[in-house]
Amino acid sequence: MRIDMNSDMGESFGRWTLGDDEALLDVVSSANVACGFHAGDPSVMLRTLSYAASRGGVMVGAHVAYRDLAGFGRRYVDESPDELKADVMYQIAALEGMARSVGAQVRYVKPHGALYNRIVRDESQAAAVVEAIRAVDASLAILTQPGAVVGRLAAQAGLRVFHEAFADRAYNADGTLVSRRLPDAVIADPAEVAARVLRMVCEHEVVAIDGTVVPLNADSVCVHGDSPSAVAMARAVRARLESEGVAIRAFAGDAAASAARD
Amino acid sequence: MRIDMNSDMGESFGRWTLGDDEALLDVVSSANVACGFHAGDPSVMLRTLSYAASRGGVMVGAHVAYRDLAGFGRRYVDESPDELKADVMYQIAALEGMARSVGAQVRYVKPHGALYNRIVRDESQAAAVVEAIRAVDASLAILTQPGAVVGRLAAQAGLRVFHEAFADRAYNADGTLVSRRLPDAVIADPAEVAARVLRMVCEHEVVAIDGTVVPLNADSVCVHGDSPSAVAMARAVRARLESEGVAIRAFAGDAAASAARD
Amino acid sequence: MRIDMNSDMGESFGRWTLGDDEALLDVVSSANVACGFHAGDPSVMLRTLSYAASRGGVMVGAHVAYRDLAGFGRRYVDESPDELKADVMYQIAALEGMARSVGAQVRYVKPHGALYNRIVRDESQAAAVVEAIRAVDASLAILTQPGAVVGRLAAQAGLRVFHEAFADRAYNADGTLVSRRLPDAVIADPAEVAARVLRMVCEHEVVAIDGTVVPLNADSVCVHGDSPSAVAMARAVRARLESEGVAIRAFAGDAAASAARD
Amino acid sequence: MRIDMNSDMGESFGRWTLGDDEALLDVVSSANVACGFHAGDPSVMLRTLSYAASRGGVMVGAHVAYRDLAGFGRRYVDESPDELKADVMYQIAALEGMARSVGAQVRYVKPHGALYNRIVRDESQAAAVVEAIRAVDASLAILTQPGAVVGRLAAQAGLRVFHEAFADRAYNADGTLVSRRLPDAVIADPAEVAARVLRMVCEHEVVAIDGTVVPLNADSVCVHGDSPSAVAMARAVRARLESEGVAIRAFAGDAAASAARD
Repeated sequence: MRIDMNSDMGESFGRWTLGDDEALLDVVSSANVACGFHAGDPSVMLRTLSYAASRGGVMVGAHVAYRDLAGFGRRYVDESPDELKADVMYQIAALEGMARSVGAQVRYVKPHGALYNRIVRDESQAAAVVEAIRAVDASLAILTQPGAVVGRLAAQAGLRVFHEAFADRAYNADGTLVSRRLPDAVIADPAEVAARVLRMVCEHEVVAIDGTVVPLNADSVCVHGDSPSAVAMARAVRARLESEGVAIRAFAGDAAASAARD
Repeated sequence: MRIDMNSDMGESFGRWTLGDDEALLDVVSSANVACGFHAGDPSVMLRTLSYAASRGGVMVGAHVAYRDLAGFGRRYVDESPDELKADVMYQIAALEGMARSVGAQVRYVKPHGALYNRIVRDESQAAAVVEAIRAVDASLAILTQPGAVVGRLAAQAGLRVFHEAFADRAYNADGTLVSRRLPDAVIADPAEVAARVLRMVCEHEVVAIDGTVVPLNADSVCVHGDSPSAVAMARAVRARLESEGVAIRAFAGDAAASAARD
Repeated sequence: MRIDMNSDMGESFGRWTLGDDEALLDVVSSANVACGFHAGDPSVMLRTLSYAASRGGVMVGAHVAYRDLAGFGRRYVDESPDELKADVMYQIAALEGMARSVGAQVRYVKPHGALYNRIVRDESQAAAVVEAIRAVDASLAILTQPGAVVGRLAAQAGLRVFHEAFADRAYNADGTLVSRRLPDAVIADPAEVAARVLRMVCEHEVVAIDGTVVPLNADSVCVHGDSPSAVAMARAVRARLESEGVAIRAFAGDAAASAARD
Repeated sequence: MRIDMNSDMGESFGRWTLGDDEALLDVVSSANVACGFHAGDPSVMLRTLSYAASRGGVMVGAHVAYRDLAGFGRRYVDESPDELKADVMYQIAALEGMARSVGAQVRYVKPHGALYNRIVRDESQAAAVVEAIRAVDASLAILTQPGAVVGRLAAQAGLRVFHEAFADRAYNADGTLVSRRLPDAVIADPAEVAARVLRMVCEHEVVAIDGTVVPLNADSVCVHGDSPSAVAMARAVRARLESEGVAIRAFAGDAAASAARD
């Protein structure tokens, strides 16, 4: 029994600090590292990659985003597919080149914020992201949610696709997330979150907000790290999983290892 | 007899167009491509790299700069060496990754504007640029002017160093450029410029503004392309050189070829 | 018989020049001046405002936009109403304060690009723009197209609303513009454009692309200035109008004058 | 006996929070509000101005800076005087217009970071800042340190000039600050800081790091607010001052009031 835990990282910028990356890197197995478009100046990127490299099993993902520092990449930007493709290529390329210099391993792409959400449904922007990945490095996997358009297009294009579940978010009966605008969208109790994640991992299911049991196959569980309580939550989840015999292992690490074996 | 001709390129940004890159790429053998910090959004970079890739012999240089779109990289920014190193790494890495995707070849780094001028003398910023190049890709050469601190440090660090002369600029008797603020700093007559370049290439010397003959060893001649008359000038220089039997060949191309032979 | 002619202006940025503002200011009566979010750094703004101030009858409009230099404000950005309100307030305030310093008169707001188009229909973003105008300076008018949601909300909020027609654009039978993606969306012949504008001004109608005669009441005609031929077009339109006895006069000038009389 | 206490504020940006402005506004009498160039997006500015407006006696200063979000305005940027003048005008104008909309009162300009330090000595940049203030609003005062070139030029230009001391910084015998790179440059003990400030206010002197007693005339004391301990320190200073009968009152408030009386 094994699962990956992923978290956003490297989201400081200049004078502004966000998250406790060093603490989080002791918990997760995959680090989604910001690439400068929604957060993460080059100095932050280099530091985050160095941290990640110092943890043997942690794989790095390019956390690519719309060009929107002021909105932290959380606002949809109506970029043309060509613009978006170039923007994503630039971010992946920058992160990969810097990662190599410190021995960190970029193995996947996880789109951030509004871009992540958009390409769950938007065919042309999803296609642009897929093309960008293929153009820069076709060995990179993509991490998205089950059922996303971008996952389907990526698979068709020959990319490896991995799916994530959200540790502390409530699900609807159809497998989608309960909107953050609704009550009970976020689960705050570490024990409950840990138990849910355990069930996701061991039983491949989650109990939806209306009580329905929903099947859920996830290669990775997304945890947050932008507050002290978030880090505590991530630690609780990991501890519970390990105590039940579930190993925390990077999804992309294995793929890379198995690719190496071929 | 041979010489490289280099020119800045890819300096458009979004809606704003600067220079006629396609025309210029038929003239020069080395293209200094902006990396997004002083000019050149990712779409512009990708387009410029594609143009360059379509010209067999043209080598690409990373035209790295301070983060200063509003000042076009022409204003000194007092970055710490660590910030500067990370900023330069990011730019080189982004350009290299994008270049690979279209088959263009990044072979050297030419710092831009205020950064170019600063590291002619500033030891700590020069060292930061050298470290950045080594960290991302130690096979990259650096293009600078004769006598620059950055050239000395780069050579000490094992990087290949190439020197450039300026086609249309007047020189002082000590080999430095006449300040643009002074009259006659820029030579406007294509025939005169071509004759000067020819003398630089064949006799390794230039006549300074006071009449002194100054020795000058250049691997490359820098020409401008940001106006129709600049492109015409570049064409005139190339035509004259070729008519005198001087081949226009990328300085970094040979190095790469010779490296391949070893 | 009179009409206003308006044009976008001050859309250079740093090293990049766009449009011939000085030439255009001799043609139009209203200048939509970029405020730094899609174009127009402070130096450009100050220069443009100084030009405008030197032409007695030219009124200035704040050409406010989404924060998107890379996209020139032509990409929709999903800003929250509060963010948008603050962004628009900032831009208006900056322009007004700078305008006062050189004696230019900011009399209206014309949203730019994607924002202009969005608030033709989007109630919440339109309301945010209206609130921003009222918060900073309720004496400012708004310039939009007939039938726009933002016009209705602005009028309800007590702001003066003016409508514009487009000199060189084809219209559909329902009074909307023919999409630029379709053939014949833009009319290139100066004589035809001038004739159409004359009919708009004198007969309050335009012939749609399918031949239908569409009623059209415009306080201003929008002309372009971002190319030499655009300036020539604007001059041709003005000359034709004046030769037919139509005066070119700022819509906001009169309102201000009449306000002063009250 | 009275003194002003000033602090930097509104230095959050988008997703990134810095400082506890609400807490600090209960302590200080003057708020240096970031204007978007080193920190402070328009939403942050509006919120900060609203907070300030809700505290009757708090005066607002425009905390103008170089255009350098990535460097938080702490890096010198070699702007030409014309560029700098326009940049400063833009920032002051934006803040003033937004402040009016919420009833806050911009009464002074305090340059930030590298700009603050630069114009202590640099004549041409200092002159640019003075011209910018005069151009936008000559009723604004400037807050700087004793002996600064910008203070002299501002006074010559007819602007009101106020001087500040630093609550927690060690002084050299010549009245300059001990560099932060040296040990003991910053005083961490609230009781000692409060005692020093009290002596500055009551005796117009400070004990330098070598024991020399240095005369010091300050209209305002600068306190920090970017950490919980900084806010605690500011509160301790204020409490001690008030317990000794020193009133905390805005320097610019009185000036404005006295101007109103004239």
